[in-house]
Amino acid sequence: MNNLFANIPRDLPEELCETLARSDAVRIERIVSRGHASPDDFWYDQEQDEWVLLVQGAARLAFADGDEVRLGAGDWLLIPAHRKHRVAWTDPEAETVWLAVHYSPQ
Amino acid sequence: MNNLFANIPRDLPEELCETLARSDAVRIERIVSRGHASPDDFWYDQEQDEWVLLVQGAARLAFADGDEVRLGAGDWLLIPAHRKHRVAWTDPEAETVWLAVHYSPQ
Repeated sequence: MNNLFANIPRDLPEELCETLARSDAVRIERIVSRGHASPDDFWYDQEQDEWVLLVQGAARLAFADGDEVRLGAGDWLLIPAHRKHRVAWTDPEAETVWLAVHYSPQ
Repeated sequence: MNNLFANIPRDLPEELCETLARSDAVRIERIVSRGHASPDDFWYDQEQDEWVLLVQGAARLAFADGDEVRLGAGDWLLIPAHRKHRVAWTDPEAETVWLAVHYSPQ
């Protein structure tokens, strides 16, 4: 059985991003962070909607429109296509596990 | 902030199923079970692929081909369209929270 908390390397020099399932319409991925954040001047600007669930850990997402949200276990949000955002912070003391579902806005 | 563990009624006479996000291509839903199972002779036979994550709790899924799998927190699997399955058991002592992503197999 596949498990979302399995196969996490002890060392995470980079954020770990893996596709768990995909079709033409959707891509489901697991992201594991540990103290990682986006570069200071970097914004994700995505063609697709992204539905994101913070499964474990703690993080902050910042948006180019000025919003910032803190996420704990179970928090989820929809980031519409082209809403510019970045990962401002993730817990440096423990793994933060995200589930992201990317799909076309139509 | 929306949270996957929030707004769970104390009493769950029926399984609770809510759509969290959807587009033409995808439907993301939360399912909360507490001791629920599918009727004995019932099989889900779905037009779409279903990617399912057991976020919290414990459950058993049975398949018409004879397989049965037990799921704990973090376990996930892809149920291809038309693979007949049913929920054989969920923990009667605590809420089991599922995340299901339905999408076209192409």
